Amino acid sequence: MNPRLQKFRKLLSVENLDAVFVSSLPNIIYLTNFSDFTTLDRDGYLFITKKNQYIFTHGIYKEAVEKKVKDFTLIDIKRENPISTSIKTIIEKENIKILGFESFDLKVNEYEQLIKKIDKKILVPTNLIHNLRIHKSSDEIKEIKKACELGDKAFGFLLKKLKPGITEIELAVEFEFFIKSHGTDISFDSIIAFGPNASKPHHVPTNTKLKLNQFILFDCGVKLNNYCSDMTRTVFFGKALNKQMKDYNEVLASQKEAIAFIQNKLKTEQKIIGKEVDAASRNYLIEKGYISMPHSLGHGIGLEVHESPRLTILSEEVLQNGMVFSIEPGIYLTGKFGIRIEDLFAIENNKLIQLTKASKNFIET
Amino acid sequence: MNPRLQKFRKLLSVENLDAVFVSSLPNIIYLTNFSDFTTLDRDGYLFITKKNQYIFTHGIYKEAVEKKVKDFTLIDIKRENPISTSIKTIIEKENIKILGFESFDLKVNEYEQLIKKIDKKILVPTNLIHNLRIHKSSDEIKEIKKACELGDKAFGFLLKKLKPGITEIELAVEFEFFIKSHGTDISFDSIIAFGPNASKPHHVPTNTKLKLNQFILFDCGVKLNNYCSDMTRTVFFGKALNKQMKDYNEVLASQKEAIAFIQNKLKTEQKIIGKEVDAASRNYLIEKGYISMPHSLGHGIGLEVHESPRLTILSEEVLQNGMVFSIEPGIYLTGKFGIRIEDLFAIENNKLIQLTKASKNFIET
Repeated sequence: MNPRLQKFRKLLSVENLDAVFVSSLPNIIYLTNFSDFTTLDRDGYLFITKKNQYIFTHGIYKEAVEKKVKDFTLIDIKRENPISTSIKTIIEKENIKILGFESFDLKVNEYEQLIKKIDKKILVPTNLIHNLRIHKSSDEIKEIKKACELGDKAFGFLLKKLKPGITEIELAVEFEFFIKSHGTDISFDSIIAFGPNASKPHHVPTNTKLKLNQFILFDCGVKLNNYCSDMTRTVFFGKALNKQMKDYNEVLASQKEAIAFIQNKLKTEQKIIGKEVDAASRNYLIEKGYISMPHSLGHGIGLEVHESPRLTILSEEVLQNGMVFSIEPGIYLTGKFGIRIEDLFAIENNKLIQLTKASKNFIET
Repeated sequence: MNPRLQKFRKLLSVENLDAVFVSSLPNIIYLTNFSDFTTLDRDGYLFITKKNQYIFTHGIYKEAVEKKVKDFTLIDIKRENPISTSIKTIIEKENIKILGFESFDLKVNEYEQLIKKIDKKILVPTNLIHNLRIHKSSDEIKEIKKACELGDKAFGFLLKKLKPGITEIELAVEFEFFIKSHGTDISFDSIIAFGPNASKPHHVPTNTKLKLNQFILFDCGVKLNNYCSDMTRTVFFGKALNKQMKDYNEVLASQKEAIAFIQNKLKTEQKIIGKEVDAASRNYLIEKGYISMPHSLGHGIGLEVHESPRLTILSEEVLQNGMVFSIEPGIYLTGKFGIRIEDLFAIENNKLIQLTKASKNFIET
């Protein structure tokens, strides 16, 4: 029996639900390990009751689902047999009174279709599968570690490619090709930003050419066996001024503030609240005279690049064993430069473990 | 003045709307030409009234939007100032009585947030921007043509890479790298399938090695200046049996049926209805003894790989000047083989123009 389905069913009774209608793609991957569906169209859904589990898909994926998803009952989506009709039948047969659905994922028009056949009073939004996914098993953490290791290697490879005149796009392609030639994929479109371009935290690579004496920001990730990594490094191409080295080291110091904050809480067995971790790093930078970051300090990561827990200024989420998340402070000065340092961390056995390992010493190349 | 906004406003009065709340990413790109937002998070929205246009985004994209989206008023999304509050203010100031929203894109929980501040009675689902996008300008068709040309070249490049032992993944990476080294992107994850793997219409490339005497199916696309191409070719690696050549030629003949059907309708100035085009090709194959395709005959393409018009068994959409779509019949025999031939076509000046040009003669390599 699929152990994730077992966990799912335990939580089903805790959350007082009779069944869940699953539309989110990463949640489908989590429960079935089937990752062929694309984001181009809606290719499939799951419907999981206390006793049975169903997977809905259309003809294009039928053969693949039959082969790879053995523990789910396949229901063919056809125009003459819309999913709302099949769901209605299951609801009646299994006497479902409370049905969870993923309101963070389901589109308004899909919901409207659903309630043509199903009494909307039985529908309640649920984050049940996110609540499972937020606590990673040691096997899941191992997968993320492997993705991080490949990312570390790729970063070393990129450093060797730096030369005046190379463009951001060329470096992004080098990264992507390095990862793909290792038989796997990137987890998001790489951010490679030279000098002033990095003042946009999510700069999209351009044909800007690398010049001497500027910062280079790399924010890249790997997806291995569906699990994601994410790391940012900022290096200096040329010889930095003292002020530039100081700026870099303050970002690094602010990351250390957040790390020390978590470690101290773990040692003293106190609750680690997302917004307090964010504040530890953010306030350090503000005290040093920098503008408050235009983004949160960090995010959970796993099957998705951005998932729970969130380290934002308002987050009440509590960091616990089995959670994996980024800590990524940055400073940005519009039209001038941007510096960000991002690592992934896991909490395992009440210890904070750093998963990304590339050096953070100030690098001049 | 942005000509697309002008068209948008004309349609606004036709559809009897006072404003539209735009959440769909391709629709945002269509109206602003800004394509930096990612699919990882909700990074922005548009709100367009009869007189004004607003773009909502958060700090991460502020600088890029300020630089690149000059004709929209930027509204900063902040946790303390949710978009529903800003929208409420605009609604009151501009006396908006009927507000279109994109129910095919907006998530149920986003809708719930919105109606906390806004009377849901004023909200109506709209496809207004899709109705604009379905009719491409000659400039848009030129962009798609350019993407197709690069795709044609890449296909020629791939044919030269074929050798026993090469894997599906390796070929997919070769395609992607060819496209990226030309400074642009792929439009969807390539489908490369050897022999029996192609019986799954959306096969995901594996480490399967190429062997002599099997079909190879390539379904690959290019994204150039945000516009997508899409083409499928099936070639034979080795020396085909007569039956294999016949199967291939029947798929090709079924594509010609659909093409001739459209050309005849254009010549006689009759309505060309999506489902009738689908039937022309589908029924030809059924009459020849093949199983009905597990997918539709074709789809529109533009900023998205799959968009309107649809050529499905139920589609009532009418093909008209300015529309760009695929015609892609296929036959699939589970565990045995799959053959699909896909080209893109545009209707311009009442003529059907083929945009993808790679040879469709039976290729044995």
